[in-house]
Amino acid sequence: MKIDLNSDLGESFGNYKIGMDDQIIPLITSANIACGFHAGDPSVMKKTVALAVKNGVGIGAHPGYPDLVGFGRRKLAASPDDVYAMIVYQVGALAAFAKAAGGRLQHVKPHGALYNTAAKDAVLSEAIAQAVYDVDKDLILYAQPGTESIKAAEKIGLKTACEVFADRTYQDDGSLTPRTQPGAMITDEAKSIAQVLSMVLDKKVTTLSGKVIPIKADSICVHGDGPKALTFVNKIRETLKKEGVEIAPSGSFIK
Amino acid sequence: MKIDLNSDLGESFGNYKIGMDDQIIPLITSANIACGFHAGDPSVMKKTVALAVKNGVGIGAHPGYPDLVGFGRRKLAASPDDVYAMIVYQVGALAAFAKAAGGRLQHVKPHGALYNTAAKDAVLSEAIAQAVYDVDKDLILYAQPGTESIKAAEKIGLKTACEVFADRTYQDDGSLTPRTQPGAMITDEAKSIAQVLSMVLDKKVTTLSGKVIPIKADSICVHGDGPKALTFVNKIRETLKKEGVEIAPSGSFIK
Amino acid sequence: MKIDLNSDLGESFGNYKIGMDDQIIPLITSANIACGFHAGDPSVMKKTVALAVKNGVGIGAHPGYPDLVGFGRRKLAASPDDVYAMIVYQVGALAAFAKAAGGRLQHVKPHGALYNTAAKDAVLSEAIAQAVYDVDKDLILYAQPGTESIKAAEKIGLKTACEVFADRTYQDDGSLTPRTQPGAMITDEAKSIAQVLSMVLDKKVTTLSGKVIPIKADSICVHGDGPKALTFVNKIRETLKKEGVEIAPSGSFIK
Amino acid sequence: MKIDLNSDLGESFGNYKIGMDDQIIPLITSANIACGFHAGDPSVMKKTVALAVKNGVGIGAHPGYPDLVGFGRRKLAASPDDVYAMIVYQVGALAAFAKAAGGRLQHVKPHGALYNTAAKDAVLSEAIAQAVYDVDKDLILYAQPGTESIKAAEKIGLKTACEVFADRTYQDDGSLTPRTQPGAMITDEAKSIAQVLSMVLDKKVTTLSGKVIPIKADSICVHGDGPKALTFVNKIRETLKKEGVEIAPSGSFIK
Repeated sequence: MKIDLNSDLGESFGNYKIGMDDQIIPLITSANIACGFHAGDPSVMKKTVALAVKNGVGIGAHPGYPDLVGFGRRKLAASPDDVYAMIVYQVGALAAFAKAAGGRLQHVKPHGALYNTAAKDAVLSEAIAQAVYDVDKDLILYAQPGTESIKAAEKIGLKTACEVFADRTYQDDGSLTPRTQPGAMITDEAKSIAQVLSMVLDKKVTTLSGKVIPIKADSICVHGDGPKALTFVNKIRETLKKEGVEIAPSGSFIK
Repeated sequence: MKIDLNSDLGESFGNYKIGMDDQIIPLITSANIACGFHAGDPSVMKKTVALAVKNGVGIGAHPGYPDLVGFGRRKLAASPDDVYAMIVYQVGALAAFAKAAGGRLQHVKPHGALYNTAAKDAVLSEAIAQAVYDVDKDLILYAQPGTESIKAAEKIGLKTACEVFADRTYQDDGSLTPRTQPGAMITDEAKSIAQVLSMVLDKKVTTLSGKVIPIKADSICVHGDGPKALTFVNKIRETLKKEGVEIAPSGSFIK
Repeated sequence: MKIDLNSDLGESFGNYKIGMDDQIIPLITSANIACGFHAGDPSVMKKTVALAVKNGVGIGAHPGYPDLVGFGRRKLAASPDDVYAMIVYQVGALAAFAKAAGGRLQHVKPHGALYNTAAKDAVLSEAIAQAVYDVDKDLILYAQPGTESIKAAEKIGLKTACEVFADRTYQDDGSLTPRTQPGAMITDEAKSIAQVLSMVLDKKVTTLSGKVIPIKADSICVHGDGPKALTFVNKIRETLKKEGVEIAPSGSFIK
Repeated sequence: MKIDLNSDLGESFGNYKIGMDDQIIPLITSANIACGFHAGDPSVMKKTVALAVKNGVGIGAHPGYPDLVGFGRRKLAASPDDVYAMIVYQVGALAAFAKAAGGRLQHVKPHGALYNTAAKDAVLSEAIAQAVYDVDKDLILYAQPGTESIKAAEKIGLKTACEVFADRTYQDDGSLTPRTQPGAMITDEAKSIAQVLSMVLDKKVTTLSGKVIPIKADSICVHGDGPKALTFVNKIRETLKKEGVEIAPSGSFIK
């Protein structure tokens, strides 16, 4: 049994620093690297790719809407054609850094509002899947299980990694409880760990309403934005290992 | 005897249109396509690459300084490391569009202030050559003959295309007469054509001072920004063909 | 009886030219000048304000979403607080050019997706009205009659100019027929002129369904993006004058 | 005897945080607030202006080159006309936030590469001074004593504040020792304090070579980018007060 741990990296920009990339990277197996539209810049991308190569971590493009001031978290009414082009652009740019560093792109995970909008929008998801496929048909698309994103990727023949969350609760339809609703976040660490184990070992999750539903988990999204977050990632790692789960980049087991 | 005709394309941006790409492309053999930093956007890049593929024209990346409002024509004191990263980024993005369209990148020609600054700056030229080499060591770098750009590219083992100009006069050291000086531009069409023939057939050019100096010409830079410019390009083509010179993409004869 | 003719100006950006500002400005009485977020740049703003001052035209700020590549036409999920700040910023910038040119700001008209989104969004409209009021409480806000934008402006004590369109049809609720629906545009010039006369003289408009509804018209939006558009504006002017309607900047009759 | 303490504030951008604005602001008398070109965004500007108003600190615009990724520290070959326009734009935007918050702009201090380039460039300095004057002729321009910036401001009739540095050494011509040269920074706190006292009380500074030269000091530039920096600013304040020097906004004593 294998699972991937992914995290968003390379979100610094020019003189602006975000994240503790150096400290989270030894704990994860796949890095989603910002591509300059919602975060990151060419020099940060170069540095972050080098860090990923050095740590043997799967390199992923993390494309977003062209909205630096909004950090890609604001929905933008871009057409599917424009989204196709912005995905090709960003994935191509990151792939070049991977190649220049002697590495190779493993996956693509859209960011923020683009990720969330695509999840429920079949046409947008098809544009994204097509773009990723056209740049490199061997790339793995990361998305939440059950979304339009996964469906579009499978339809076109792209490999997918189903992403799950340790600190978010799920609705009965398998979607995340929106952050605007009560109970969206799991603040109790033990509960988070229990949810992770359930998702990975039993392929099940208990929803906010108490129902037990099936869920596919290939990769767990973790954060490295503080000492507490790092400790939590370490705890997830140890617990999973104790249960005999191997933590490995998605590219090593999704074929 | 072969020569390439190159032109800057894909300079439109969003709602803003520049250039007569549809009309110049049948007349040229290599297109330098803007990469979104000084001009162009992802959707324009996609469209322009498709146009190049359709017309069998060599696809080139035309990276510039990140200065849309200045159209990449203003010198920016970016470090060689930052320039390395911005070249990898832009070339990678355009290469992805070429691949997505079933094509392949042929060359890289830096734009505007970046092109001019690198010509005289060995360290900057090395950063650019290294970046192009690291993305794809088979790419051809376009630059003026005798510049630091050509030297750096040759040193690292990149193929080069020496670019010459039909409508600019040359100094005794082989450099272009700066536009700020009198006599910089050749406004007489017959003189322009004569200069082209001399450079291509005899590998010589008569400088502004009247001296005859050797010059290497692999590609002629032409413009498509008006009906007069298009007529002039047609005249260059006809004259060269009449003299038995084959007009072909640089990638077909620079190995 | 007085009416204002307004048009969007100053939409060029750096090397990119849009619009025939020099030719439309003698025909209008109020200019909505782009403020650098969706179009325009500081140098274009300076030049356009000078043109407006020279032609005795009312100077207006035309703030938009920060989306140059989308020309401000794509809805962006910016919070009311962020919209408040982006309005203060853009209006303040344009007001400074007006002052530097010896003029004074007359009005504010939000652009594109911001204009359309605010029309139906009371909270966003309040943020916009508050921002305009806080920069200068004597400014006139341009918006479609009956919208949340007008309501919010009136509530806070801002003067308003009700904007109508010559070439768009209206729905029974007074809103414009969306461009995505058949019959949205009036392509017949005579019908356009008739609609203008009806709106200005009788304060009524015949909707797409044939119903006659009341409408308030302080300013007619016209375009200068081609010879045909200019001819049409001239025709509107002549017809209105023949009917004894004075064409004047909104600032001269909205007190 | 009076002196102003100024510091650069409002340099955060969107999701990116820089500086400890809340902690430095009680220690200073004038704030240079970034205007969105090299740092800052409209929402950050609003928040920072509110902070300045609340703390009774002089509000200043801190305009820079349009280079967010380079933080305005890279020289850009912008024409004086373009610099004029970018100053009007940024100062106007910040003035609007000041007005909206019930305050009033006190001064303008160009940032980074723009500040340094103007210091030695008379034509650029005239463009900046003219822009500031045209927006509001009562504003105070901050610049190093003896520079072209000061000369241009005085020539046009703008008030000026001569800015000095506690932690930088001076050359015999009154300019700062470039950071690239040894001895540019004063790392010994006692020496820094001694230099401040000498500049403020005796209007003299001992240059790096040991020469004593006259210097005019209206405002001392301080930083709040760490606990050590804050402690140092406190020490400067205490020492100056002990010597009977009043610390006050430049606007209160430069008339």
